[in-house]
Amino acid sequence: MIIIAQPAVTDAQIDHILARIEEYGLRSQVMRGESRVVIGVIGPDELIREKPLAAIPGVESVVPVMKPYKLAAQENGATPPPVAIGEVLIGTGQRVALISGPCSVESKEQLISIASLVKKAGARVLRGGAYKPRTSPYSFQGLGENGLRILAEARAATGLPIITEIMDTRDLALVEKYADCLQVGSRNMQNFALLKEVGRSHLPVMLKRGFSATISDLLLSAEYILSEGNRNVLICERGIRTFETMTRNTLDLNAVPILKAKSKLPVVVDPTHGIGVREFIPQMSLAAVAAGADAVMIEVHHDPEHARSDGEQALRPEVFADLVRRLRAVANAIGREL
Amino acid sequence: MIIIAQPAVTDAQIDHILARIEEYGLRSQVMRGESRVVIGVIGPDELIREKPLAAIPGVESVVPVMKPYKLAAQENGATPPPVAIGEVLIGTGQRVALISGPCSVESKEQLISIASLVKKAGARVLRGGAYKPRTSPYSFQGLGENGLRILAEARAATGLPIITEIMDTRDLALVEKYADCLQVGSRNMQNFALLKEVGRSHLPVMLKRGFSATISDLLLSAEYILSEGNRNVLICERGIRTFETMTRNTLDLNAVPILKAKSKLPVVVDPTHGIGVREFIPQMSLAAVAAGADAVMIEVHHDPEHARSDGEQALRPEVFADLVRRLRAVANAIGREL
Amino acid sequence: MIIIAQPAVTDAQIDHILARIEEYGLRSQVMRGESRVVIGVIGPDELIREKPLAAIPGVESVVPVMKPYKLAAQENGATPPPVAIGEVLIGTGQRVALISGPCSVESKEQLISIASLVKKAGARVLRGGAYKPRTSPYSFQGLGENGLRILAEARAATGLPIITEIMDTRDLALVEKYADCLQVGSRNMQNFALLKEVGRSHLPVMLKRGFSATISDLLLSAEYILSEGNRNVLICERGIRTFETMTRNTLDLNAVPILKAKSKLPVVVDPTHGIGVREFIPQMSLAAVAAGADAVMIEVHHDPEHARSDGEQALRPEVFADLVRRLRAVANAIGREL
Amino acid sequence: MIIIAQPAVTDAQIDHILARIEEYGLRSQVMRGESRVVIGVIGPDELIREKPLAAIPGVESVVPVMKPYKLAAQENGATPPPVAIGEVLIGTGQRVALISGPCSVESKEQLISIASLVKKAGARVLRGGAYKPRTSPYSFQGLGENGLRILAEARAATGLPIITEIMDTRDLALVEKYADCLQVGSRNMQNFALLKEVGRSHLPVMLKRGFSATISDLLLSAEYILSEGNRNVLICERGIRTFETMTRNTLDLNAVPILKAKSKLPVVVDPTHGIGVREFIPQMSLAAVAAGADAVMIEVHHDPEHARSDGEQALRPEVFADLVRRLRAVANAIGREL
Repeated sequence: MIIIAQPAVTDAQIDHILARIEEYGLRSQVMRGESRVVIGVIGPDELIREKPLAAIPGVESVVPVMKPYKLAAQENGATPPPVAIGEVLIGTGQRVALISGPCSVESKEQLISIASLVKKAGARVLRGGAYKPRTSPYSFQGLGENGLRILAEARAATGLPIITEIMDTRDLALVEKYADCLQVGSRNMQNFALLKEVGRSHLPVMLKRGFSATISDLLLSAEYILSEGNRNVLICERGIRTFETMTRNTLDLNAVPILKAKSKLPVVVDPTHGIGVREFIPQMSLAAVAAGADAVMIEVHHDPEHARSDGEQALRPEVFADLVRRLRAVANAIGREL
Repeated sequence: MIIIAQPAVTDAQIDHILARIEEYGLRSQVMRGESRVVIGVIGPDELIREKPLAAIPGVESVVPVMKPYKLAAQENGATPPPVAIGEVLIGTGQRVALISGPCSVESKEQLISIASLVKKAGARVLRGGAYKPRTSPYSFQGLGENGLRILAEARAATGLPIITEIMDTRDLALVEKYADCLQVGSRNMQNFALLKEVGRSHLPVMLKRGFSATISDLLLSAEYILSEGNRNVLICERGIRTFETMTRNTLDLNAVPILKAKSKLPVVVDPTHGIGVREFIPQMSLAAVAAGADAVMIEVHHDPEHARSDGEQALRPEVFADLVRRLRAVANAIGREL
Repeated sequence: MIIIAQPAVTDAQIDHILARIEEYGLRSQVMRGESRVVIGVIGPDELIREKPLAAIPGVESVVPVMKPYKLAAQENGATPPPVAIGEVLIGTGQRVALISGPCSVESKEQLISIASLVKKAGARVLRGGAYKPRTSPYSFQGLGENGLRILAEARAATGLPIITEIMDTRDLALVEKYADCLQVGSRNMQNFALLKEVGRSHLPVMLKRGFSATISDLLLSAEYILSEGNRNVLICERGIRTFETMTRNTLDLNAVPILKAKSKLPVVVDPTHGIGVREFIPQMSLAAVAAGADAVMIEVHHDPEHARSDGEQALRPEVFADLVRRLRAVANAIGREL
Repeated sequence: MIIIAQPAVTDAQIDHILARIEEYGLRSQVMRGESRVVIGVIGPDELIREKPLAAIPGVESVVPVMKPYKLAAQENGATPPPVAIGEVLIGTGQRVALISGPCSVESKEQLISIASLVKKAGARVLRGGAYKPRTSPYSFQGLGENGLRILAEARAATGLPIITEIMDTRDLALVEKYADCLQVGSRNMQNFALLKEVGRSHLPVMLKRGFSATISDLLLSAEYILSEGNRNVLICERGIRTFETMTRNTLDLNAVPILKAKSKLPVVVDPTHGIGVREFIPQMSLAAVAAGADAVMIEVHHDPEHARSDGEQALRPEVFADLVRRLRAVANAIGREL
């Protein structure tokens, strides 16, 4: 940490700051510039972070030096192995994976129909929500365990591994019975009880960025999962909340190269929620691949006008199939496959 | 709902839209302006909201007319009774309540010492966290049940009712044993499983606004609690996330009169997190009372330089005592008491 | 400045960084923590700021230590005299000033009527726009010089000094002929050519915060005016742009105590634009005074249903008169007058 | 426009609203839903927009139906011809253009050196600032007319047409003498005096999106230029301001397909400012092409460690040359050229 002292800091305050640092069990180094005093605080990161340096009189601000997400950062570590969802490897550096399916599981017929279509088009993982985090309590909340059963049937029918959302710590054992990958949604990105719980699962976890989570917050939430022992974490950029109102969210593709550089975790992009307007999802999917995403997740529905959620942003299967061809061309253009 | 058709909408598309509306069991009214076609959709709100109108070809946008939070809005209802935390009534329209205490429960000595000081200064409810939602997994996570026990001891020692945070659905029975009011924190504002669970509690719930939750989102989250049967809900404005970096958050006092007008739920303001800089918390507390808050929640610590969390934003007890006198003067100036 | 080196920085890169600092004519001090190297850069602030430290290989980030707004900050200076608009002193620390009037000058009758009403209610400065910055080119753009003449007539009729907006460097001589204070609007907060031009005026300048300007940006824009020699600068908080859609802007009252602490310039708050909904402007005006504003600017119109701009956020004169009484009570409660 | 009445609106208020609409010279159509009254307002858009409908008692909100940017939208118009910068056509739908050069013109040697390198690599338009909008008044403000002269020399030396920023209405005649395309920067996106002035120029104008401008605001600013008669307008997405701090801005690539759909103006993307970190500019440039940009503008400097502005985000020429090859591959993959 670096302490920047207030402009009018007194010598007595500096002495008090240095005494506190010593009392905390840390070392210090003072640097006097032409108009400000700066104090470096040296010691084990874990210890430094827990001390209320900013609470000491005379301190103007405290600048962290170390990234607080050690496991996610792997600053000194080797590249980790890719994350496996069923048999599908994500984050190999070479092949871009497609995750697709409806927003919600609505019925066996619906899911198997869509799963077959997206598989044929090129998707390698099936998504579908059995527990739906809806802004309103009066909206469709998902089919629950019945939805999980249907997901398993769709896997049996198509061979696609499945990813589905978990919203409550009490549901882990149940969801683990059916899923190949757990999804923690944007609204639960800082539901730390849930993060710890999925951190103890044997299944991989895809963690979606919160609406207003910084990249640092996102990596710290990944750290919660990693620090419980589960090293199979995928990070998903899905759009952030800004002042723009023409789109549902603002897809932050900047996050893709940043996440790849700051962390070694595979990066998924969800252009469906990231723009939220059906017509423009193909362009943003192409951009996601060009930006370096390891996987792209796209919602597809065979009958959007009767979808129980997110019909306005679901691609029809034939549009999806056409898009896959274009995604593959862009992947090839940057030296990858799909 | 109002459907605004695309500029180039065809007659066939209009016919299809109208047919869908009828198929959905709703009625429609078409309005042709000089350059656009607008279609009103009429029927029960619950039904309208569930239909994917935006997914129909030719639809440019869908404008909701009704507020989706019926219980929180109480548009046609009488003013509800105030919410009681222990014996303390919040939302009487007359008296402004002060909620105070440390960020975290650290020890029995710490809590009872602070509780006694804030009570003497004028606080009527004691706050303190036993379960702490920390951005980093390596930060102090709270004392858990031991912290709850200490809170109960502080209540016994001072007579102040206690409010404390709940983070996990599995903890409800335990926290209910000790608390007078449950707090749902900003990071869990859309943890819908938790909202439903506290919606079944006999205790009042203070729901804090999420970092990037709109006022509408906030009221919909309140609606989750209300619709489970728990009508004792307090709403807390605690700062939103913006581009400004000199403050921890941007305290959105606009939300106070808006919430009072759109809903009848009592409104609490948390200036401590809302600005996050100790020196400026008094001014924002005064502004919160002037804006019409029903209660103000302020963090106090007798030894901020050794606080285990948020030391940099805790007021010292003597500063708090002085502030209470000024808060009372402002409350009186707007015709209220404190 | 403080340079934080990349985690994997090499000794050769450190040497290169130190050599560059020396070549730039600056001194350095190296601090080696347990896992990172930090380099303090010492020398005259003006020189340090101009050097592309972040462009040097091995640098992860550069943390500024000094505030870049010397004149606005007056860190070592005495409190400056208040700013005079005509005879009205703003920033005395004691009296809170009221600035009021219509959004746009529409006619002589309209302006004199409103000016008389707001004066009687307690306003001490008259506002009114002759040049209007409208988002759409098809909206009413103001009466131009004719509007300026009407403003001067209203001043003659009521004795109130006038503040009006300037939008173009070419208009300075003209506006100076009529106005007592120049307003630079939010949309021009970083129109640096205009800032320099009004920096050469003999009139005081009220600088409004841009929609998405940080407090630091705002003070740097004030610095443009101050550094041209005009020391009579007022800063105006008028709401920032956030994700919230129920209000026109988010009034950032946090900025009031921050600006008062970081700078010695008088602070005006504009609750009219800050919330943009007529019904809630009184509460936000009260909060602005409680937060410590030196002046409050409120739009008033005697016939909002025929206003040529911003009718939906203009207070009717009788509402304004009632509000002034309540503002005075709050000012008194915090030890000030109005 | 559509008026949504307040929930508790009275019949007398409805009558008053309808009377006002008639008085304004407009027609109305009332629609009564199960719980709300909605009133359609019919008439010429220009007339409707100017009326303060939201100021009428009983009105809860007013929803615009028509886009206010007629010329920019070209809803009923044919696709316009591409915009020519010198001989380079932008917006042909086929070829993606590269605009490149340093942030600031620093010297003849610097500019001609960089211009030659970027031309050789594939850039077709040269950028360089002679007037620099700097946040601080103490930062390098550009070489002014001397910079313009150097730009013209670089054009003579390389054949590349030049684009350069204009910041002051008074500079138009001067800048027109040298430039092939005028740039209006983000900070001046709502400097309406400047927009009108460049709207009267014979040169094309590239309008950059403001830090917190919505897409609608941006198109309305384009409308200012178009409505003055200048139909050669390019729109540039360059990143918006959000809460994220790891990147300088958040590049909003969502804006690319939206702008292409809502308007027919060519769309330029500036990944350099959009992410602001040298290391990640290539990925965002690739994404911009994949998203459908008509041109990409990238800053290049041959000696970033001595650049007078933005050294930390300038690509070195050899990195740029390598990037061009990858951009071409992505352009080809989506059926375009570069």
